[in-house]
Amino acid sequence: MSGTLACAPLAAPTPVSGSTRLFVHLGHPITQVKAPGYMNRLFAARAVDAIMVAIEVAPSGLDAAVSGLKHMTNLDGILVTVPHKIAICRHALHCSDAVRLAGSANALRRHADGHWQADNFDGAGFVAGLHAAGHAVSGWPVALVGAGGAGTAIAAALVLSGIARLSVLDVREAAASELVARLNAYRPGVAAVGRPGDLEAARLVVNATALGMKPGDPLPVPVERLNRDAVVADIVMQPAETALLKAAAQRGLATHGGIHMLEPQIAMYERFFLG
Amino acid sequence: MSGTLACAPLAAPTPVSGSTRLFVHLGHPITQVKAPGYMNRLFAARAVDAIMVAIEVAPSGLDAAVSGLKHMTNLDGILVTVPHKIAICRHALHCSDAVRLAGSANALRRHADGHWQADNFDGAGFVAGLHAAGHAVSGWPVALVGAGGAGTAIAAALVLSGIARLSVLDVREAAASELVARLNAYRPGVAAVGRPGDLEAARLVVNATALGMKPGDPLPVPVERLNRDAVVADIVMQPAETALLKAAAQRGLATHGGIHMLEPQIAMYERFFLG
Repeated sequence: MSGTLACAPLAAPTPVSGSTRLFVHLGHPITQVKAPGYMNRLFAARAVDAIMVAIEVAPSGLDAAVSGLKHMTNLDGILVTVPHKIAICRHALHCSDAVRLAGSANALRRHADGHWQADNFDGAGFVAGLHAAGHAVSGWPVALVGAGGAGTAIAAALVLSGIARLSVLDVREAAASELVARLNAYRPGVAAVGRPGDLEAARLVVNATALGMKPGDPLPVPVERLNRDAVVADIVMQPAETALLKAAAQRGLATHGGIHMLEPQIAMYERFFLG
Repeated sequence: MSGTLACAPLAAPTPVSGSTRLFVHLGHPITQVKAPGYMNRLFAARAVDAIMVAIEVAPSGLDAAVSGLKHMTNLDGILVTVPHKIAICRHALHCSDAVRLAGSANALRRHADGHWQADNFDGAGFVAGLHAAGHAVSGWPVALVGAGGAGTAIAAALVLSGIARLSVLDVREAAASELVARLNAYRPGVAAVGRPGDLEAARLVVNATALGMKPGDPLPVPVERLNRDAVVADIVMQPAETALLKAAAQRGLATHGGIHMLEPQIAMYERFFLG
């Protein structure tokens, strides 16, 4: 017994039993997600008998997978990541204002009436992360690359937090146009589909595409054209320093990694899932 | 720092991340299952980044739930319990001999060709548990109550292990007749649908119904009619001492609880799921 003590770690993961409530994190790919680790530490700290597991589902399987999840009666909630944030909306009967403005969702829970209710904390988490890092975005011109699930949520939250204007760039022109139309219906003239020159003028440049997850991905924006005052933000979480952030830092620009939009969301998920 | 040492517990549950492989245990109800606890300790002991969670699915939702599970590409295996062991077979393309003889399955994994493969370790686990407790069943007359998923698996394994004869009792006469026909096709005359007198003659009486899970359930057999030498076995695991086992013990009969059929199966699941 020399040199050893029986001891338990603080906030050890709750052992899984037949009465453990389930939460899942849906995406494709899925190995990069961090929320299960955060949420399971939270469940342990609050002594809630629940676990979140990550589930990989390709777009072609999303509808069948979600139909299956709805039949799992000990499942209480679903987090949603790339590429399912827009498609998941058709599986929720009740949607928050954030979901309606963004056209995308990242969290679903069972409503008291048994139907599913969707919310989106990506945008609010992203803006809270910027504020925490000292980047007050009110009044700034912003360029957003990517009008997918995360991009639309971030666009909605940026507009709601008072930015001066938003330039939306996406190779899929229809996706960019739809987002711009939705934002302008809420605040006329705040958004436009990106044009040459928008990047140079932006005080905040956001990559909301998946570019940077895989080695060899092209940069989502030409870093050499950005303003010297620009903050360059990325939603990609793994690697923590993407090629975009690395190139921006080499140019001396302020950078803001993907992890910062997740941290504020954990408290939001806690309220949404556990009340 | 007085009196504390930084130390990690032995075989602590693996933290769940995006790369954790998934296994599920399907049933209805589900709170009583023990396999997730056993399997997660096994994964931890072998340092396998995997987790098993319990999932509650009603019979009406089984097909949708399994279709959904098949679309989850980081899911490697499914354990199946009451009431899905027979219905699950239609979801497997490849079935073991045990599945074909029993007509039921309790474990599925992805085959190398991408299709799902079913096996059934309930019966083999049950017989191994009896042997470990000193009950050599070869040559015994046996009465089995319940021709459902677990009952058919136990019947198949008992016949394969050389019992003298099997009397099958079930209020659903068609289920009992189908099982008897399948067993007699394998070994003519070994099985019969239960008649009055079979219980009194049995050296082993097995409850393979769910009766005993809920307080107030009626006893599956009239204990006062059993032979003084009879071993009374129950597949119900929770409560550990069912009303049947309690009544049998009060009469001085040998009893054998449901947990004994699970323990030998963990090693069988290990080989099946992890190779």
